[in-house]
Amino acid sequence: MQNVAGLIATGDKLKLISLIAAAGVPAIQATSFAQPKWVPQMADAAEIASALDRFQDVCFSALAPNLKGYQRAVAAGLRRVDFVLSASASFNRKNLNASIAESLEMLAEVTQGAKRDGVDLRVDISTSFHCPFEGRVTAEAVVRVVRAVHQCGVERVALDDTDGMAFPDQVQNAVAAIRDQLGLEPNSLILHLHDTYGRGLVNAAAALEEGVRAFDASTGGLGGCPFSPGSSGNLATEDLVALLEGLDYSTGVDQEKLLDAAEFAVRLSSRPYQGHLLRVRRPLALLPPAGTRMTEQGSDLICP
Amino acid sequence: MQNVAGLIATGDKLKLISLIAAAGVPAIQATSFAQPKWVPQMADAAEIASALDRFQDVCFSALAPNLKGYQRAVAAGLRRVDFVLSASASFNRKNLNASIAESLEMLAEVTQGAKRDGVDLRVDISTSFHCPFEGRVTAEAVVRVVRAVHQCGVERVALDDTDGMAFPDQVQNAVAAIRDQLGLEPNSLILHLHDTYGRGLVNAAAALEEGVRAFDASTGGLGGCPFSPGSSGNLATEDLVALLEGLDYSTGVDQEKLLDAAEFAVRLSSRPYQGHLLRVRRPLALLPPAGTRMTEQGSDLICP
Repeated sequence: MQNVAGLIATGDKLKLISLIAAAGVPAIQATSFAQPKWVPQMADAAEIASALDRFQDVCFSALAPNLKGYQRAVAAGLRRVDFVLSASASFNRKNLNASIAESLEMLAEVTQGAKRDGVDLRVDISTSFHCPFEGRVTAEAVVRVVRAVHQCGVERVALDDTDGMAFPDQVQNAVAAIRDQLGLEPNSLILHLHDTYGRGLVNAAAALEEGVRAFDASTGGLGGCPFSPGSSGNLATEDLVALLEGLDYSTGVDQEKLLDAAEFAVRLSSRPYQGHLLRVRRPLALLPPAGTRMTEQGSDLICP
Repeated sequence: MQNVAGLIATGDKLKLISLIAAAGVPAIQATSFAQPKWVPQMADAAEIASALDRFQDVCFSALAPNLKGYQRAVAAGLRRVDFVLSASASFNRKNLNASIAESLEMLAEVTQGAKRDGVDLRVDISTSFHCPFEGRVTAEAVVRVVRAVHQCGVERVALDDTDGMAFPDQVQNAVAAIRDQLGLEPNSLILHLHDTYGRGLVNAAAALEEGVRAFDASTGGLGGCPFSPGSSGNLATEDLVALLEGLDYSTGVDQEKLLDAAEFAVRLSSRPYQGHLLRVRRPLALLPPAGTRMTEQGSDLICP
């Protein structure tokens, strides 16, 4: 939501969360404890967090970019926090105003706090495959950062395709390298997907093949990277769920209810829908529309 | 183009063809010899065909739904014709006003004509994976139709994901079944991709893995199936080329020139751009735009 122009009312955010929860999505990153001065959209993070008790059977988390954010998240009652740092030095600097080493030092403090507080910590490695400033990120660079994060005692690591430039062979190589060199099993990893170049699903399928079973997506395809304005955002959850269910993976998500949530999300957003499923929601019974030349009597219109 | 509301000037169609050719796309289906009464957009098919001589190094073809269309294509000077029939009886009836058996009889006539005329014939099997009326199409059903087509003496067969509902495992199963049961090698097949549900690229990658090396896509993502109005159209050629080149396949296509062609195609179209690459065309040097909170000084804005 930080990409949406204009503040979204807290009530609307909670309404969206309730729709996503009602669809059966198992885990929701509900807000971000970024500094309100920089990200005014997230100024209501504590209010959101304190309203999550009403939803059953959902694992809620919040993003925290630093120790302060972590502390605010925990004070607001959250038991799961997503910390973030980058596999690319330039991006870590621009995104977090810190070197990777400084972010890792901060992570050590956060990890201690999480152990003390009984908080379940996850670490997102942004630009795991490509950096808008440095170009392609090698599997070696990702392994290096994941090793450092793992040595901090963090078990749950997400590989984030921040600018959507990942290719499926890179995803598979990174997952395999992490397994082979660090002993972290693919089914303990999370893949955070963007659809900037339409490659969200192909990267998901590549990771599935390699044994990854947890994916981040965004209902209605909101989000995205401000370095690619106008482009598609995060991978749309509804597109991902349709692929997974079609491949006979059971997601536990009700696709019709998820499309309800996606419709609401898009109404809150400041831009046209960027996913796919919602565009074909109208039932087949209503089709084809007036003007379509395909008739009961048949025609020469060819649809290869 | 048959999906575009309003007639496109013949000169604009030729301009688009010239831009696609200039980008180095090796093969272009330039028009369709459908009945002008049903598809007025294609009434200039012969005029288009007769203007193609000026382009070098491109294999031009036209769609022909029946013997009459085939004859008109050849009379207009084309040496490659794409015939079409369906793997689904209902779709063949609605799309072509014929049973599959009747389409196969017509194909036999067309095949004889092509042998006599020295014309290179390809056959598209529409709804190879899913039919809007009958649901999922089995690999067995596709094999049955491909066998009949092959027995007519046709070597080049395209599997068409007409409504974009294919899943990557289906694509792999169909390609493997055709290889195993009919002895047709995957690299002799063509996969015709739609992006209705955003699965064009994941299906392409699945087919690549199985050995398919020829793909149909549409510059700017034009096209699509009238049974899914408002949805994404054919897979955008620019999205496909970006994936292939990123995976180190050499397409021979100049991506910048292809984006020029895509921009022109979208201007001719009656709907917003449905692909991905064009949305991120602006060079990184111009980014981030005003209002983005990611600064040189760093910030708390987090882009996972």
